[in-house]
Amino acid sequence: MPGARPRGRVTLAEVASRAGVSRTTASYVLNGRTAQMRISPAVEQRVRSVAESAGYRPDLAAASLRTRRSRTIGVISDHVAGGMFSSRLLVGAGRAAREQGHVLLIGESGGEPATAAAIITEMVDRRVDGVLLVTAATSQVRLPEGLGPLPVVTVNCTDPDASSTSVLPDERAGGRAAAQVLLEAGHRGIVVAGEDAAPEVLAGRLRLAGIAEALSAAGLPPAERIACGWTVEGAYAGLAPWLHGGARPRALVCLTDRVAMGAYQALAELGLRVPEDVSVVSFDGSEIAQWLRPSVTSVAIPFDEMGARGVRALLDGEQAQVLLPMPVVDGGSVAAPGVRQEHH
Amino acid sequence: MPGARPRGRVTLAEVASRAGVSRTTASYVLNGRTAQMRISPAVEQRVRSVAESAGYRPDLAAASLRTRRSRTIGVISDHVAGGMFSSRLLVGAGRAAREQGHVLLIGESGGEPATAAAIITEMVDRRVDGVLLVTAATSQVRLPEGLGPLPVVTVNCTDPDASSTSVLPDERAGGRAAAQVLLEAGHRGIVVAGEDAAPEVLAGRLRLAGIAEALSAAGLPPAERIACGWTVEGAYAGLAPWLHGGARPRALVCLTDRVAMGAYQALAELGLRVPEDVSVVSFDGSEIAQWLRPSVTSVAIPFDEMGARGVRALLDGEQAQVLLPMPVVDGGSVAAPGVRQEHH
Repeated sequence: MPGARPRGRVTLAEVASRAGVSRTTASYVLNGRTAQMRISPAVEQRVRSVAESAGYRPDLAAASLRTRRSRTIGVISDHVAGGMFSSRLLVGAGRAAREQGHVLLIGESGGEPATAAAIITEMVDRRVDGVLLVTAATSQVRLPEGLGPLPVVTVNCTDPDASSTSVLPDERAGGRAAAQVLLEAGHRGIVVAGEDAAPEVLAGRLRLAGIAEALSAAGLPPAERIACGWTVEGAYAGLAPWLHGGARPRALVCLTDRVAMGAYQALAELGLRVPEDVSVVSFDGSEIAQWLRPSVTSVAIPFDEMGARGVRALLDGEQAQVLLPMPVVDGGSVAAPGVRQEHH
Repeated sequence: MPGARPRGRVTLAEVASRAGVSRTTASYVLNGRTAQMRISPAVEQRVRSVAESAGYRPDLAAASLRTRRSRTIGVISDHVAGGMFSSRLLVGAGRAAREQGHVLLIGESGGEPATAAAIITEMVDRRVDGVLLVTAATSQVRLPEGLGPLPVVTVNCTDPDASSTSVLPDERAGGRAAAQVLLEAGHRGIVVAGEDAAPEVLAGRLRLAGIAEALSAAGLPPAERIACGWTVEGAYAGLAPWLHGGARPRALVCLTDRVAMGAYQALAELGLRVPEDVSVVSFDGSEIAQWLRPSVTSVAIPFDEMGARGVRALLDGEQAQVLLPMPVVDGGSVAAPGVRQEHH
């Protein structure tokens, strides 16, 4: 690739010359030091007007050497860019960064520590102003080495041993909300489909804890659990034998939308209809929820907002653990338990 | 956010001092100019060993001022980062960039020209070495203004009026392959579901052209067309009334996996089974194809590979239109047309 010398870029010296001032004066004006340097408003206006009409833009590589600020945010991800839904996080982060004149330098490690280390080196070399550490699943992580004094905000993940700011979905409240939807429809016996995933994945544990809290607060016994993988195929494989064995749940909480898709397949095989025979609620608020027939009521992970909030927390130096609400996106998958009888 | 001064960075001057050589000599060694500057192997080895043990890394902001190379590639996307499947393009691009010591600066415009222009300004200011212009759908585009002399490779899109290198999936060959799967299973009457999308989207037009070519080559009449949106809901809405009206297709080509999902729903409603009653083939090779029961045979867009190839074409200065093959990912959705009778 040929070297990319920015042709046609107007230099500071040219602006100064056209405005009839010294390079130093032009620099002071364009770096906002007019008052400090006692530069007259007339000169300031002349320099600014020349700079604007000539399309002058500061040389950020040179500015970076002086200010040590690149207006670039490094994003270190495990699988977010390649994730079907989590990639929305990058959209929100990119928009929030642009609103404040920053851009994102994105590196995806695939979950490999050696790759993450290489990405960090590249980002430090390019003088990122700070780092977002992001994960596709709500997780506990350890901050990687090598970030040194760089400000870090973790998004969709948290390091319990670090004091860094984190932005997380409020999964426990989301769990309560999912159960509440079914309780308010009049259901009492609730089955939860989906296993508690790997220990570092917080989502499953917190969703289950929230569901348990809501049932307990309603004076109900704990939910029955059908453990199955967090995939369409895994959910089908876990639920189909159980249903074929005669189980007839009336209300099902699926721990992800993928699990709901597998559950719909298993229910359809038995001729069980949603919501007439079985009410279903799930988590993620992904496009899958909309695609199912009927669409499934789903407690949404606000990926877009999480990315935006992470960037703002980083740029504002916010020190906090931010828990973002998970909105319930209504589908057509919940009905009162009495409806089944009317149809049979 | 506090300024991020890289603490503990070893400077070139320190390396030179510890190795007992001049700063210039150390610089020549570490910039690979040993032979040219007639530096002895002993000195070279001493400098390299000091640099390595001290963890010296070149200052890229300073290097960028000298060399005008930032080893950074700008990625300008419409909706790729936020796309469910297209975001894989960024994974492949990121990996290929890292393999050559580059990183990606990613900006997503949401398809807004003003946002794209702002992103380009930011990238030019940060001296990207080149730009990948990427789109979520295989499209015709116009190269945006403001890129000046920067090398550009378009990935999943092409500007017919520009000479820039493009990397595209071979959609026409993919269309032929989709029809071929059904022809080889013994089908003769093939129905295509999905409309020709917006004129700038090449995928639909080329897939349809490929299907037509394969049918024509087999001496068969053109396929019947059921126009419907490229969404799950749109496909269901288009196909359900047609099936309820008595249509009984034996072989269906769905223009995307989303269309296939909607088609499965409409077929299931009529009690029509895949593949016993209807064979189905689709395009995209997305995760949806795997999730359907049975999984649908799908002609895949190699997003990951397209991203990687785009980066390599950019860094190698390749001048070409690259058409990448679309592999057929086999599912369980195709059977010989005779099977239906056995079941009825």
